[in-house]
Amino acid sequence: MIVRVIRVHVKPEYIEQFETATRANHEGSLSEEGVLRFDVLRNPEGRGEYLLYEVYANHAATETHKQTSHYAVWKETVAEMMARPRESESYEVVAPTGRAAWKVSEA
Amino acid sequence: MIVRVIRVHVKPEYIEQFETATRANHEGSLSEEGVLRFDVLRNPEGRGEYLLYEVYANHAATETHKQTSHYAVWKETVAEMMARPRESESYEVVAPTGRAAWKVSEA
Repeated sequence: MIVRVIRVHVKPEYIEQFETATRANHEGSLSEEGVLRFDVLRNPEGRGEYLLYEVYANHAATETHKQTSHYAVWKETVAEMMARPRESESYEVVAPTGRAAWKVSEA
Repeated sequence: MIVRVIRVHVKPEYIEQFETATRANHEGSLSEEGVLRFDVLRNPEGRGEYLLYEVYANHAATETHKQTSHYAVWKETVAEMMARPRESESYEVVAPTGRAAWKVSEA
């Protein structure tokens, strides 16, 4: 598994539109076979800071994701909303081991 | 839900011991009713950088966690392993909604 942690800073006037666009990307991403999680988090202090927590089955899945229409639409839609460039980090998993422990529940 | 994202920098000579201690904290934490996830991630570049992704049902669950023996043991054990103080951030959830989508699978 590969986990990508992405920090996004949104201009205050775009917060609602950013969340709508990012929820759509969340839904689309979870429909991908190789995307196990796609959590969207918000800093509660209301400064337009978000964190995306994206869990992929493998490196190929990260590449597949970037070729999807939902990613392309999201990237295009939110471009003007950014207060600063996105920051991305990649991690490998220490725990939990096993793909079943990572896949977001359908419930 | 409340998500805590914690960055840890470990002295190189303690990496193996840190991972062993943190796996034990992971196991103990998931046995808590209010802890939905406790992911342990490692920067693949081997610099002793880790990220803990802790998902709690509510604020009370974050307080309960700090009173557990597995947390106390972990905190005491890893104290000397730190290359610098831990950095912690808290987030609220935009997506997915619903607790079932957060709870780590037992599988």
